[in-house]
Amino acid sequence: MRRWNGWGDESVRATLAPEALAFLREAVGTPQPVPDAELATVCARIPDSRLPPHPLVDTAPEARLRSSLGQSLGDWIALRFGALPRVSDGVAHPTHRAEVRTLLDWAQAVGALVIPCGGATSVVGHLTPEAAEPRPVLTLNLSRMRTMTRLDAEAQLATFEAGVLGPDLEAQLRAKGFTLGHFPQSFEQASLGGWVVTRSSGQQSLRYGRAEHWFAGGTMLAPQAECTIPPLPASSAGPDLREWVLGSEGRLGVLTDVTVRVTKLPEVERFVGVFFPGWEAGVAATRELAQSKLGGLSMLRLANAVETRTTLKLAGHAGAIAWLERVLGWRGCGDGKVLLFVGLTGSASQVRATEREARAVWRTHGGVGTGTVLGQKWAAKRFAGVYLRNALWDAGFMVDTMETAVPWGRTTAMVNAIETAGREALTAMGERCHAYTHLSHVYPTGSSVYSTFVLRVGATAEESRARWQALKAAVTQAIVAQGGTVSHQHGVGRDHAPYLGAEKGAAGLAAIDALIQHADPNGLLASGNLRPVR
Amino acid sequence: MRRWNGWGDESVRATLAPEALAFLREAVGTPQPVPDAELATVCARIPDSRLPPHPLVDTAPEARLRSSLGQSLGDWIALRFGALPRVSDGVAHPTHRAEVRTLLDWAQAVGALVIPCGGATSVVGHLTPEAAEPRPVLTLNLSRMRTMTRLDAEAQLATFEAGVLGPDLEAQLRAKGFTLGHFPQSFEQASLGGWVVTRSSGQQSLRYGRAEHWFAGGTMLAPQAECTIPPLPASSAGPDLREWVLGSEGRLGVLTDVTVRVTKLPEVERFVGVFFPGWEAGVAATRELAQSKLGGLSMLRLANAVETRTTLKLAGHAGAIAWLERVLGWRGCGDGKVLLFVGLTGSASQVRATEREARAVWRTHGGVGTGTVLGQKWAAKRFAGVYLRNALWDAGFMVDTMETAVPWGRTTAMVNAIETAGREALTAMGERCHAYTHLSHVYPTGSSVYSTFVLRVGATAEESRARWQALKAAVTQAIVAQGGTVSHQHGVGRDHAPYLGAEKGAAGLAAIDALIQHADPNGLLASGNLRPVR
Repeated sequence: MRRWNGWGDESVRATLAPEALAFLREAVGTPQPVPDAELATVCARIPDSRLPPHPLVDTAPEARLRSSLGQSLGDWIALRFGALPRVSDGVAHPTHRAEVRTLLDWAQAVGALVIPCGGATSVVGHLTPEAAEPRPVLTLNLSRMRTMTRLDAEAQLATFEAGVLGPDLEAQLRAKGFTLGHFPQSFEQASLGGWVVTRSSGQQSLRYGRAEHWFAGGTMLAPQAECTIPPLPASSAGPDLREWVLGSEGRLGVLTDVTVRVTKLPEVERFVGVFFPGWEAGVAATRELAQSKLGGLSMLRLANAVETRTTLKLAGHAGAIAWLERVLGWRGCGDGKVLLFVGLTGSASQVRATEREARAVWRTHGGVGTGTVLGQKWAAKRFAGVYLRNALWDAGFMVDTMETAVPWGRTTAMVNAIETAGREALTAMGERCHAYTHLSHVYPTGSSVYSTFVLRVGATAEESRARWQALKAAVTQAIVAQGGTVSHQHGVGRDHAPYLGAEKGAAGLAAIDALIQHADPNGLLASGNLRPVR
Repeated sequence: MRRWNGWGDESVRATLAPEALAFLREAVGTPQPVPDAELATVCARIPDSRLPPHPLVDTAPEARLRSSLGQSLGDWIALRFGALPRVSDGVAHPTHRAEVRTLLDWAQAVGALVIPCGGATSVVGHLTPEAAEPRPVLTLNLSRMRTMTRLDAEAQLATFEAGVLGPDLEAQLRAKGFTLGHFPQSFEQASLGGWVVTRSSGQQSLRYGRAEHWFAGGTMLAPQAECTIPPLPASSAGPDLREWVLGSEGRLGVLTDVTVRVTKLPEVERFVGVFFPGWEAGVAATRELAQSKLGGLSMLRLANAVETRTTLKLAGHAGAIAWLERVLGWRGCGDGKVLLFVGLTGSASQVRATEREARAVWRTHGGVGTGTVLGQKWAAKRFAGVYLRNALWDAGFMVDTMETAVPWGRTTAMVNAIETAGREALTAMGERCHAYTHLSHVYPTGSSVYSTFVLRVGATAEESRARWQALKAAVTQAIVAQGGTVSHQHGVGRDHAPYLGAEKGAAGLAAIDALIQHADPNGLLASGNLRPVR
């Protein structure tokens, strides 16, 4: 069973080593854990549904609760303290496309607002009804639509119902020798349709691409129309309608079917850990590799010095790590050292050739390869790390992450601006945060910047929320001031919507509004995601 | 000086060998060349401009003529016979962005329609005013806006004014060690802005990408707004506004500045010719290579048997070719043989590794590599081949090309459908055409299909036009019936606009119309390109 107030399956429990807790206590102060609200108590507080009955709609409080919040720190605070925002009035779990249409038509007829939902892993507030929304709210949870309906092995195109979650999708593909290769940290719980409509990016996007690259076509049910986009390899026939589905965040319609570009399972995959003496050398090597067009690279992930130190501290194995650090010190990688994980994926010969070329690049920047031990450990824990947040919360620490992307020349300034803004926001409240950053998705022209903040849970929901909001606002303002995108991989939702104008400009916002107004003139899907409701 | 009624610079004259002409006479019949209309005569027939005077607007007939037609066969017929469609009423050549705004505002004030123009190489009727358009028509020719205004060498981003033509753009980049690598056949005469707004694709798109891939951002002047898109490496912040500029074909605004993703000049580049015993083997090898993710591949271009034979026939060097064909015959590549050009581009070691891997693939499909002689010859003539059309017309032959893209499984059926439709359309008129095809742009999921038709010029403009229209209609209908895109690389213009619904669906068309209506409510840019004028 999935946790109702944390990450992942209840049967998976992460634990923190005592030295890790000591490290964090030193960084942000001794926390005071707060007991969680009980599920039953929280459900009992949920008001009656305002929807009329419908055989496909579940109005039980727990079902509504589970589809009305995501995984943002704000959501966690609400759930752990039981200080809920408004939840939806009912949840439908359609099992095929015709039911989605039935439900859209019914919602329109009874004057309800519809919020689509996939894996409910949003970290930017996509799922929660606005408090001021006068209509009853129906959540369309697509997670029962999860079948691979077609596989064209020759063209490497697979069609799925949009609600399929990551592991289920990969299992269906792997049985046929293929992979989508889309592995965001939320992989275990997130849905294909959600990835598309929020323009998701997976850890190995260097090989497999972002949602924009593998989303080949599909079907979207709009309030008053249905749009099917054929999976053409490329087209110059005017606007690309896929791009109107990507990033639409539930405002233009409900994506029900998704055709994706898949790849044969690779012969070989390994992750190599490379240390550099300092940040600038690491960035220079990463940039050169990102611009090299080497076919066998699947990931370049560069941690800054604090993240590198934090990773080594939280890894356990203190003896082995101390020995590693001594050896690295002899080779010039001391206190300010940074760690790059290089993902190598493809045919055996391609991976061999790529590794040879990549090694030549990292060595010119003082990089010291340490083989695959650290990398394989990272890979083994790539989806487990997020479970640590459960253990951290239980210990009284809360975690938020923020991310953006900029051209290469502005990367370092962005990292500094983000970390400084976060720290100063907490300092102003008499608190501290532990901030660290990695570059997780790289491109020839620039990089994403992904920062993690660990801070203490407050004594109350209000205190915790005030810390989160101060952090979020300060960092987002810093991102915008530095010319970064409002989001590289999480989307806009309601949390980022006020900042969208900085990136799109007034003319861009007006055009987006015009498209929404065209597709959804009656506001059936007017959740406030992406753009405020007019 | 550029030819007013054919391709390219007047100083470049292509000639056809006698055996090439004999080959074509055999294929389609003996032609009867028709003398060209004179420029002076044609200009004398152009009616007076209906625009009021403006210091930036040239109303001389020749200037208006030169910016009102493109390079489609229909345009050639009009120009060669002097049977002109309506031409624009004036041409402005703005030299900077502020002049574009001035001209847009002036056109709006005097009630004129504006048609933007770059290199005037459209083959789908982008430049010609509709006969029924009641307003005077102003052409905005951007070809004097051609400066590289910024180069960020670290992020490999270059910003140009949108009117820059291919050779000028490459010269400015090459001086700094970079290339855009966008080489469509129209390279010599086409403009950067035109490539973007029609979603152009260059011959080495496998390495350098389509316009969608290298267009990083820019500025568009809409009738009532201005939109600047920052060159972010990636973003999940809602709709990607670049995608609204791409394929907009002058209906949403005038693109004035373009930031492109550039690449360091490669160390090594070569083109290898590989023969296969037959079409199916060639397609299978090409598909496997396209799906291999080999970093050093820049081009895969597979000619079918007729195109292969035609290429060898028109190449001259009959003795050497006969010897080559004998050797190929011994190795299983006889009458039905097909020729694949493999472009290899990158660092020396990467190209070496890629060639080794690629050779292993083509050999498993019976491919016979013939080294770089044929490939280098192709590369040397890659922009010269189109000059042959001048010589062909002079000899009484006219040429049209049509193109689409489909997933791999439908490639062969598409080739057959296109060639058959073209041949039957001409047969129905008592004529013949010589049809041949290559796959020019390949993707993991499918391929473009590019067919060439050689037919006889008619005795009159009407007869020639009837042949062209019958061919064009039959082939386009075949493309649509087979589920191909209306255009893989030429755009929609007015010629393909009636077929756009087959690809976009009613809901898609309605959304495009809504966006046009929003950006251009008064129809200042309502040329009829992309979508009919309402």
